[in-house]
Amino acid sequence: MKTKVLTLAVAAALLPTTSAWAAPTISDLEARINDLESRLTTNEQQTQQAESSASAFEFHGYARSGLLMNEHRTGATDTGPYMTAAGDLGAPVGRLGLEDTNYLEANLIHNRKLDNGSSAFFKIMLADGVETSNDWTADDSDLNVRQVYAQFSNLPTFTGAFENSTVWAGKRFDRDNFDIHFLDSDIVFLAGTGAGIYDVQMSDDWKANFSIYGRDFGSVESAGTDVENYVATMNNHIGQWQVMFSAMDSKDNEDVTDDSTATHRAKHGLHALLAYHADSFYGLQDGWSKSGVLIGSGLGAQLKAIGSDGNLNDDAKAVRAFTFGVKDINKTWSVAPALMAEYSQDRIKDNDEFKWGTFNVRVSQTFTENFEMVYEGSYQYMDLDNSVSSAKGSYYKATISPTLKLDTAAGFFERPELRFAVSYVDWSSDLDNYSVSTATGASTMGNGGETLFALQMETWF
Amino acid sequence: MKTKVLTLAVAAALLPTTSAWAAPTISDLEARINDLESRLTTNEQQTQQAESSASAFEFHGYARSGLLMNEHRTGATDTGPYMTAAGDLGAPVGRLGLEDTNYLEANLIHNRKLDNGSSAFFKIMLADGVETSNDWTADDSDLNVRQVYAQFSNLPTFTGAFENSTVWAGKRFDRDNFDIHFLDSDIVFLAGTGAGIYDVQMSDDWKANFSIYGRDFGSVESAGTDVENYVATMNNHIGQWQVMFSAMDSKDNEDVTDDSTATHRAKHGLHALLAYHADSFYGLQDGWSKSGVLIGSGLGAQLKAIGSDGNLNDDAKAVRAFTFGVKDINKTWSVAPALMAEYSQDRIKDNDEFKWGTFNVRVSQTFTENFEMVYEGSYQYMDLDNSVSSAKGSYYKATISPTLKLDTAAGFFERPELRFAVSYVDWSSDLDNYSVSTATGASTMGNGGETLFALQMETWF
Amino acid sequence: MKTKVLTLAVAAALLPTTSAWAAPTISDLEARINDLESRLTTNEQQTQQAESSASAFEFHGYARSGLLMNEHRTGATDTGPYMTAAGDLGAPVGRLGLEDTNYLEANLIHNRKLDNGSSAFFKIMLADGVETSNDWTADDSDLNVRQVYAQFSNLPTFTGAFENSTVWAGKRFDRDNFDIHFLDSDIVFLAGTGAGIYDVQMSDDWKANFSIYGRDFGSVESAGTDVENYVATMNNHIGQWQVMFSAMDSKDNEDVTDDSTATHRAKHGLHALLAYHADSFYGLQDGWSKSGVLIGSGLGAQLKAIGSDGNLNDDAKAVRAFTFGVKDINKTWSVAPALMAEYSQDRIKDNDEFKWGTFNVRVSQTFTENFEMVYEGSYQYMDLDNSVSSAKGSYYKATISPTLKLDTAAGFFERPELRFAVSYVDWSSDLDNYSVSTATGASTMGNGGETLFALQMETWF
Repeated sequence: MKTKVLTLAVAAALLPTTSAWAAPTISDLEARINDLESRLTTNEQQTQQAESSASAFEFHGYARSGLLMNEHRTGATDTGPYMTAAGDLGAPVGRLGLEDTNYLEANLIHNRKLDNGSSAFFKIMLADGVETSNDWTADDSDLNVRQVYAQFSNLPTFTGAFENSTVWAGKRFDRDNFDIHFLDSDIVFLAGTGAGIYDVQMSDDWKANFSIYGRDFGSVESAGTDVENYVATMNNHIGQWQVMFSAMDSKDNEDVTDDSTATHRAKHGLHALLAYHADSFYGLQDGWSKSGVLIGSGLGAQLKAIGSDGNLNDDAKAVRAFTFGVKDINKTWSVAPALMAEYSQDRIKDNDEFKWGTFNVRVSQTFTENFEMVYEGSYQYMDLDNSVSSAKGSYYKATISPTLKLDTAAGFFERPELRFAVSYVDWSSDLDNYSVSTATGASTMGNGGETLFALQMETWF
Repeated sequence: MKTKVLTLAVAAALLPTTSAWAAPTISDLEARINDLESRLTTNEQQTQQAESSASAFEFHGYARSGLLMNEHRTGATDTGPYMTAAGDLGAPVGRLGLEDTNYLEANLIHNRKLDNGSSAFFKIMLADGVETSNDWTADDSDLNVRQVYAQFSNLPTFTGAFENSTVWAGKRFDRDNFDIHFLDSDIVFLAGTGAGIYDVQMSDDWKANFSIYGRDFGSVESAGTDVENYVATMNNHIGQWQVMFSAMDSKDNEDVTDDSTATHRAKHGLHALLAYHADSFYGLQDGWSKSGVLIGSGLGAQLKAIGSDGNLNDDAKAVRAFTFGVKDINKTWSVAPALMAEYSQDRIKDNDEFKWGTFNVRVSQTFTENFEMVYEGSYQYMDLDNSVSSAKGSYYKATISPTLKLDTAAGFFERPELRFAVSYVDWSSDLDNYSVSTATGASTMGNGGETLFALQMETWF
Repeated sequence: MKTKVLTLAVAAALLPTTSAWAAPTISDLEARINDLESRLTTNEQQTQQAESSASAFEFHGYARSGLLMNEHRTGATDTGPYMTAAGDLGAPVGRLGLEDTNYLEANLIHNRKLDNGSSAFFKIMLADGVETSNDWTADDSDLNVRQVYAQFSNLPTFTGAFENSTVWAGKRFDRDNFDIHFLDSDIVFLAGTGAGIYDVQMSDDWKANFSIYGRDFGSVESAGTDVENYVATMNNHIGQWQVMFSAMDSKDNEDVTDDSTATHRAKHGLHALLAYHADSFYGLQDGWSKSGVLIGSGLGAQLKAIGSDGNLNDDAKAVRAFTFGVKDINKTWSVAPALMAEYSQDRIKDNDEFKWGTFNVRVSQTFTENFEMVYEGSYQYMDLDNSVSSAKGSYYKATISPTLKLDTAAGFFERPELRFAVSYVDWSSDLDNYSVSTATGASTMGNGGETLFALQMETWF
């Protein structure tokens, strides 16, 4: 009896908050823990499954869509970042407030991962671009597949220099393309169908990519021509420096003829890029900048979209320099200047000579978490001589754009943006009727001095 | 020794089901609880991640696809809800059993949500509609992007009247469009490219939407024309009442010319809708109904698809009334009547005059959880005078459709439906060779008196 | 006092690792368990939700994309598995190293499941195929919707023979189509728009499918013709045997006329397949094989793509035999031979007569977890007489293809594959200028003796 009393006393001491006779025993708790463990194990498996089926698919995209109206309350369709006479040469101006197209890229991605860490990545990109504001655009649709490729990473049998490399084949935009977003211009846009390998470790600080891309000049289906251009590229990242070499070969290109064809269509091309990717804004904190130079000859004289232009002279020569950066000045102001300039000669016709330079600056002024004013000024100088006629002059644009965002503090590249924009564009009248193309009836810039009103959405994710 | 015996006795009392020497201690349990807590914390994070990556993407759609055959065992391609002579004016008839098209809308949605509750929503809609039954339809494809837009909700800096409002820009179908599904007709279909704001709280019971939509008459790419129409809309919800005003402006529309163009093409338009959204079936429980009237002039005389038709006279006038509803009579029977009628004059040509009215009723009779019979009767009266010639008469349709569903108890709007349908359609012979269009060779209704057999899938999700 | 000492002693015995005064009590543990239980319950619900929203959508696809170059460093666009003169009759050769197209199928699937186990499945298939290597293919795009259908499974009111059956309607590839992947040829490819039911249990070992598919010969939109062909099929699986009967009816087909039309275009057709699906490689383990015969007359003489060809004579007769299989010989070597042969007469023109037979073998030799060599040899014999002219001869191809995969041990059908391939193709010169078509200017094989270099990605998932 003494023992029993004592037992109760002990139990009461251990479970002070419940009445002695209703108190859960250790065995009760153990049963509940057992139950929890088994439920949690099941739940962990289900979570795993949900996670893996959710991560097997990814949806990413870019889109812009909106209205553009001029001061005469009519549509403005020949505007855009390549609206100037030099636009045919790939000379961009600041894009803000000039775009009328509804353009989108929708990426559907399938991921597969093995337990050993190796993985396969598959991407389809659907893209479309139309001017029309209508909702049913079957007659105007440009919907097409811009990318379809697969790549492997972390293959266990890839060792040594290849340990962290990625191999791919198919149709794609090269992974290491980069752009000046504000000009809607890539620095290099290497794309097409082929195969390659990324991130071969050449030495401690040196990684290299190797690839072969095919391009078509014209097309079997639409133009009845089928001229292939093969582009071999070695792209090196050495610390913050990038050095990229491309050579191209298009055996049948000299046989193509059309209205404004090059004097002697090139069969070969060389292209090089030297760039510096700085993690500061020209030495200042809270920013970054990129600068470099591109040179090319023959088919390589199309400096941006490497190997994509067959209408180049066999002794075409071009050189382009660029620099751009982004800097947060304080919590309110940020600035993003960009400069791009090109000189080319014997580009299409013998003795043609083209010079252009663009300076653009975008500035943002934050007012609230969701609202900022964005300003853009753009200037382009052109001195163009297509061997038959020449023109020289300047293009100016000024834009002011009240902008809504989810989080203005996230900076220039936070999207979506919903924006209203008013722009004034003008240019030297000498440029009005000039065209780089010598084809009869080639389109020109027309007259400047226009005010443009834009309502636009832009997003990427 | 007494103490030891006692200790064992106490332990035995506390853990009666396990042998004394294997009994878990509180410390054992604590260790297991610690372990559970840490596993659960990890699992909660993974669940969060799986949930957020799963909810970042949404897939929604609408589709119908099937075969339509007439009693001569040949395809029936000029049938459909707009098959009558008045169909060119937007006069629909009951759709059940008449549709031969394979039509689909696929929505790809990206959601982004910040911790402060604000969110961004991005939608792409791909759509296609083809007649052909074949599986490879590249030559017939109408695949296009009907919507691409972004919108923000719950922005923290939107306060007061704007606290619950949503802002958007891009190409879209207006959020508040609504339709009579059985007639395949929207009451209003406001769509295009622009920007707007929903749910501005004007007073306790009054919310308003404001928007500007651009539309193109013709298109740059396919028709060489580029006439923009700008539509400004204020759409009010006051309790169960909806009052919507639209004004439109298309400066260059008068310059367009074509075969059957309006006498004096309108440059402006006004449009109004008054509607009542009842949560009862005309006062009866277990149902709902919607009724209203639309009026428009000039470019606003296209009463449904606001601002989408440029071929309207500058003094075109139109008025349309509608009422429809759905009522579950009992567990077996449900009924959905619909009435729509329009009067318009000086619509396209001076002195033209068009009257039409459609009465449609769809009835469903549930047999099992998965099977129901659906019946549809449709009648349309037309009195049409295009200023050159006139015709008057009636159209009749009766359809019976055995239908499979996952859950018939879920009502008229539960989908998918797999259906077989037999329809008989006939009309007054006066209408056979009549066309609203005065263009030479405009298509007509042809002869009536046809039996149609349909196999069809319809779904939305 | 003795009791107190004893109590402490007991407590110390139970909680040896913590100091007596900080020891958690049972009540502390209970509180933590309560907390865990409630957190876990919440987490289980969230997992459920994440799982169900993740499983509501599925993304599946097939794609191949790559470059093909001949020894003259130009594109090779008339190659492919149907490149021979007999290709127009559906005679394939081994595909490895011959394909220049960028082809993809992207399936977007929506699943819905009720608690009673019944489910709805909805699928859209987008597909595209282009030759061009360029990234922007709007002018060449063949993007189109090949499938859009819905189906129900496990409907609770489907009992008896229908208990495990699946009903569907819409546009689709038949579920039970199967192919010789190495030849890029289906054995049967039943597809179109219609409705049907799968897996009706006729007896213990016998399941049957019933379907009606519509097909169009020509099309309303692109060709101005609208000739429907209706195909009714019964497809039986009896153990490992498959017996399939199709009858077709196309009332208006005799009225179509074109350049190379059949002598008397068929209005009806019959088609049958007898196949044996073995789970061994002709009796050997570690493999499987399929063998069978197809016969058809009239519109049924298109033996593969049932009912898809309207240009067949009313007394066309065709018979085709096939056998193929896959066998893993050891850890290094696997082999996949395939044989297909067809005889047809009065097929298009009275008195035409076509014989062809293809033998193909693909062999894989595994080197590492990620690398294998794949070899393919292909031979085709043709004896072709289109009633006007005839040709006879052979086609040969040999391919060697170094191939990267995530896991070579997973066998022939593991994808993605990234491959390089070198092929040599040649054929009898008698075939060079021969065409099955009697139309003037019909394309021919041209000259043989070509070396082809391929870089290609292929995947499915």
